[in-house]
Amino acid sequence: MPYGKVDELAINTIRTLAVDATFAANSGHPGAPMGMAPVAHVLFNKFMTFNPKNPEWVNRDRFVLSNGHGCMLQYALLHLFGYALSIDDLKSFRQVDSITPGHPEAHDTPGIEVTTGPLGQGFANAVGLAIAQAHTAAVFNKPGFDLINNYTYTFFGDGCAMEGIASEAASTAGHLQLGNLIAIYDDNKISIDGDTKCAFTEDVLKRFEAYGWHTLHVEKGDSDLEGIEAAIAKAKEVKDKPTVIKLTTTIGFGSKLQGTGGVHGNPLKADDIKQVKEKFGFDPEKTFVVPQEVTEQYHKHAAEGAAAEQEWNKLFEKYGKEHKDLHADLARRLTRNLPEGWQNKLPTYKPTDPAIASRKLSESVLEAIYETVPELLSGSADLTGSNNTRWKKAVDFQPPNLGIGDWSGRYLRYGVREHAMAAIMNGLSAYGTLIPAGGTFLNFVSYAAGAVRLSSLSHQRVIYVATHDSIGLGEDGPTHQPIETLAHFRALPNMMVWRPADGNETSAAYYMALTSKSTPSILALTRQNLPQLEGSTIEKAIKGGYVALEAENADVTLVSTGSEVSLCLEAVKTLKDKGKTARVVSLPCVEVFDAQDKDYRLSIIPDGIPTLSVEVMSTLGWEKYSHEQFGLNRFGASGPYKEVYKKFEFTPEGITKRALATIDFYKDVKPLRSPLNRAFTQLI
Amino acid sequence: MPYGKVDELAINTIRTLAVDATFAANSGHPGAPMGMAPVAHVLFNKFMTFNPKNPEWVNRDRFVLSNGHGCMLQYALLHLFGYALSIDDLKSFRQVDSITPGHPEAHDTPGIEVTTGPLGQGFANAVGLAIAQAHTAAVFNKPGFDLINNYTYTFFGDGCAMEGIASEAASTAGHLQLGNLIAIYDDNKISIDGDTKCAFTEDVLKRFEAYGWHTLHVEKGDSDLEGIEAAIAKAKEVKDKPTVIKLTTTIGFGSKLQGTGGVHGNPLKADDIKQVKEKFGFDPEKTFVVPQEVTEQYHKHAAEGAAAEQEWNKLFEKYGKEHKDLHADLARRLTRNLPEGWQNKLPTYKPTDPAIASRKLSESVLEAIYETVPELLSGSADLTGSNNTRWKKAVDFQPPNLGIGDWSGRYLRYGVREHAMAAIMNGLSAYGTLIPAGGTFLNFVSYAAGAVRLSSLSHQRVIYVATHDSIGLGEDGPTHQPIETLAHFRALPNMMVWRPADGNETSAAYYMALTSKSTPSILALTRQNLPQLEGSTIEKAIKGGYVALEAENADVTLVSTGSEVSLCLEAVKTLKDKGKTARVVSLPCVEVFDAQDKDYRLSIIPDGIPTLSVEVMSTLGWEKYSHEQFGLNRFGASGPYKEVYKKFEFTPEGITKRALATIDFYKDVKPLRSPLNRAFTQLI
Repeated sequence: MPYGKVDELAINTIRTLAVDATFAANSGHPGAPMGMAPVAHVLFNKFMTFNPKNPEWVNRDRFVLSNGHGCMLQYALLHLFGYALSIDDLKSFRQVDSITPGHPEAHDTPGIEVTTGPLGQGFANAVGLAIAQAHTAAVFNKPGFDLINNYTYTFFGDGCAMEGIASEAASTAGHLQLGNLIAIYDDNKISIDGDTKCAFTEDVLKRFEAYGWHTLHVEKGDSDLEGIEAAIAKAKEVKDKPTVIKLTTTIGFGSKLQGTGGVHGNPLKADDIKQVKEKFGFDPEKTFVVPQEVTEQYHKHAAEGAAAEQEWNKLFEKYGKEHKDLHADLARRLTRNLPEGWQNKLPTYKPTDPAIASRKLSESVLEAIYETVPELLSGSADLTGSNNTRWKKAVDFQPPNLGIGDWSGRYLRYGVREHAMAAIMNGLSAYGTLIPAGGTFLNFVSYAAGAVRLSSLSHQRVIYVATHDSIGLGEDGPTHQPIETLAHFRALPNMMVWRPADGNETSAAYYMALTSKSTPSILALTRQNLPQLEGSTIEKAIKGGYVALEAENADVTLVSTGSEVSLCLEAVKTLKDKGKTARVVSLPCVEVFDAQDKDYRLSIIPDGIPTLSVEVMSTLGWEKYSHEQFGLNRFGASGPYKEVYKKFEFTPEGITKRALATIDFYKDVKPLRSPLNRAFTQLI
Repeated sequence: MPYGKVDELAINTIRTLAVDATFAANSGHPGAPMGMAPVAHVLFNKFMTFNPKNPEWVNRDRFVLSNGHGCMLQYALLHLFGYALSIDDLKSFRQVDSITPGHPEAHDTPGIEVTTGPLGQGFANAVGLAIAQAHTAAVFNKPGFDLINNYTYTFFGDGCAMEGIASEAASTAGHLQLGNLIAIYDDNKISIDGDTKCAFTEDVLKRFEAYGWHTLHVEKGDSDLEGIEAAIAKAKEVKDKPTVIKLTTTIGFGSKLQGTGGVHGNPLKADDIKQVKEKFGFDPEKTFVVPQEVTEQYHKHAAEGAAAEQEWNKLFEKYGKEHKDLHADLARRLTRNLPEGWQNKLPTYKPTDPAIASRKLSESVLEAIYETVPELLSGSADLTGSNNTRWKKAVDFQPPNLGIGDWSGRYLRYGVREHAMAAIMNGLSAYGTLIPAGGTFLNFVSYAAGAVRLSSLSHQRVIYVATHDSIGLGEDGPTHQPIETLAHFRALPNMMVWRPADGNETSAAYYMALTSKSTPSILALTRQNLPQLEGSTIEKAIKGGYVALEAENADVTLVSTGSEVSLCLEAVKTLKDKGKTARVVSLPCVEVFDAQDKDYRLSIIPDGIPTLSVEVMSTLGWEKYSHEQFGLNRFGASGPYKEVYKKFEFTPEGITKRALATIDFYKDVKPLRSPLNRAFTQLI
């Protein structure tokens, strides 16, 4: 069907809604919505299948606006198609507590797949969504049951194209031959600093070709709807490569300032709005206008999507009869609940079991549960043998033609691309059928900080397997030894940072990571061996903190995590020799501990006893749980790890010295309150 | 001169030194040194000019080992050329307190230009070193005085090539047409996970071509010394593009495991070492052998370098006669001291001056000092108009043929490439003639965390201009509002995090950032306007913390930073209405405050008065300076900033409520110690 007046009207409706909303908010980015309205109109109406009444339908096509600052484009589309996003929501764009915030947030707004805005993230999320589709299809599709066949589409701009995370993700997608991924590059030649000539003169399509992508160019992106449609159709024909379509557009199309940086991040002026509306045939006196015929066209497409879902539901029901187990598995995954009884597979340990590095304990968990928890998809940023993230029988997720894996594989080789790994995991989690776990050294989770933050903000169940968690990694030295990393991520809201001290605590960390449906986790794991503690159990550890060694009339509480807990237990003996009694608390996850009731917490770190924290990294934040802190507020050192520990006095003697000073210092303070006893409660 | 036996012997000496050192340490990476010894031998002896007796000579050629895990290659070279790195230093490879740590550290080892190991960093540092050379040459070279003409060489491997930071830096270098940069890509097809086929199948040279690089390929990198030499010579001929030479090598050349992942990160086994040495004509019973003829050849080249420096010194002396001011300027810059009296240019403010956003105050500092401090080189990651990093008369650093700047320009358009920006700034600082300042939003300094960490670890004087520092940025919303960021960087050793409250504090922040020769700074600056405080001066603020409002017999001390200090001052009035007296402390930089003597610190946050901290982000770490904390331990909200502040109770009333609770809670505690009073001192 050729394009006609209603199409033009629809495109201009999107443009004027973006103009009106940014003007009303006196804030926001009209330029990208005005430039990309044509491609959005074509893509959503001609190619995408979705049901606005059920944004969660698993086989919907996915759309990611990687240039998230252009979110009025997406909000306008969601409104026009009839998602639960009203015209009043558009009117409260960028207002407190609206569902139309300044950048799209997956958790708050129906129809938003992933949280974007920080540049490059959405592009990498889209790669994750496409991987999830390919994997889920390989696992569940059967002859006659093409259950999972959606595409993932993403828009990205020059800003995203410049970000390293997008380069990493594009290289990954090319390697993986993701034919189900179609990216549209908004080549408007404008970034915030103005003409891209000032910093970005590379040949983007050639770069994507180098990654193994199929590339296309539509020169008249402002008007050539047929050309846009033909390009997307061609992209869908290429099954063994992702496609990037370079679409040359005019930012702020229609504005007096079109094609300039002036229209990127500022609302249009009143007189400009007037001429834009007149040019587009809209009444300049009216705002937030949606012509009836546009609504009808969009609702018609929405109805087609609803019908498609109905068809799919019938197919899925039929599938249940022929493939009962698979049907049950997929249906269960969509609830985000784990298989019943899965937790019985978690390894448990006795104190007499041998000392084992927690990275190996983590491997034992994966080995023990992978069969029972089929949605677990592991991987590593090129540190497989060090992170111990791969169970023995794992198959790699790879294009079958490489001969080293297949699409149903559950192990992802991310390459040395930590930032893309994290954002791809966010996309994998957002798809809805998988729980991703990805490994790197704890120190290099910092390379991924931008995406880790979005795991938290967008409530993704993502597991960071972060090994080599301290100076205990030894010889690799200060460039690889985390000091600030745990403080960083403990300060990040909605993130569980686990630093288990032994096998039971490692199992507990996985238990919480896997069952917390909307909270990501970082598991900080050792390179070096750790003894199995006397007092640990999974049940105790899942409270985030517990008493590892109780003592009556204790002179001091030692609060510690991970590899230092067993050191504290040794220090108890040294302290006894000095006539002092110590109790030891293991606090593997402060965020989970904080969520326990106050009585419980005060039973662990009680009033009346001075508390010393012991953790071999920055002390920042430990004042919350202890009166005094023993840590490492400097960079580490390269050497055999026991030597390094000794250099910094992380020995029973070093702990004892500081515990004695702590006992002495607090002997005159009355009342000596637990550091958990506070004057007021934080807002959450 | 054709290559002969001594060359072969030298190459095998490097290889066996790497084998012996990793074996002795029972740790390290022999593979890369064994594979790259040939190219290193050719590059250092045929092309590089340097004086081992003065590793600081400004016009030396720069070498960066981006694949820093192969550092035994570099340590072997430094030893052979006669740098202050003895054979005993090689024997204590990877031992505590040696100058041969597990990855190369610039600050500790003579001849190491930058700290590498975290992958991709060195490559981006090299881009910074090359920019610094081009800029310094443009400023100081005059007809007959080609003072600054060094090249920058870098080696990088597949790991670096996969990292986004290297992609960002390569795109930047291509745009900037850095003909003085030659990168050698060790195409050994092995990363830690094994064959690069599993994750990295892109066409690397084609990608670099897309960035605008000149590309070459040497197929027999293990043996073709003439081919290597010809390629580097050709690279030097191309003046308007950086060159990448893909060098196909065999990792662990000579080992039984050559060409496999087995030789990447593990020492060779004893029997393998035996056969390697026999194959190379070395005595298998001896270790750390350096044949006399190798020493002679290398020392001869070192002597040529020393002579070259002598020549240069003469030229520089002559230059002093013809270009007195420039000579004095360069000589001064090399001392890293600023021009005398520069600080008199810093703006000062009276309480009656208008309220101004600290990002604008920062701009006023740059505007006031740029002429006096010519080594200051500013820039932004595509947020120039938001970061306010560009003085009005700034010229862009650009290739002149683009028509938008020149090589002497002092403003760098980094593009949307935060991570590369930070690493390029590390390189700019390491060059020795520049102080880089680069802008982005505070939230996106996290994208650069990997490089920011290395600014600290390697003692670079780098300034991060981090605007939009809190929920005070308003409408952009939670994706852009930092919560965890300051806690993160406060936990990073050797980093000054400044959050100035007004104009005088902003000037103080710049004073400390510019005069601290081996400490980087992050300046967290507001988008919104801030009033000029009654009690602030530069002199007070450079102590990191001071009393902004004193009060006798105070009931509470309010400790705050940045935009919340003026809120606390308002709360003093509300508290007075409730019959309570409050004093207010401004703590713009905790790291600098911590460095003051204890008496001073206790005069600011004294015993006997309960203290409440007020900062509109994570409270993590504030327990160190306060009894109670008011902060934001959740993500922010999108809306006009005053509305957002109100939502989270950051108002005089909200502060008052919590101050009253604090006063009440501590009234029975005796003695009530300052939180600064501790039982023992941290090791530093």
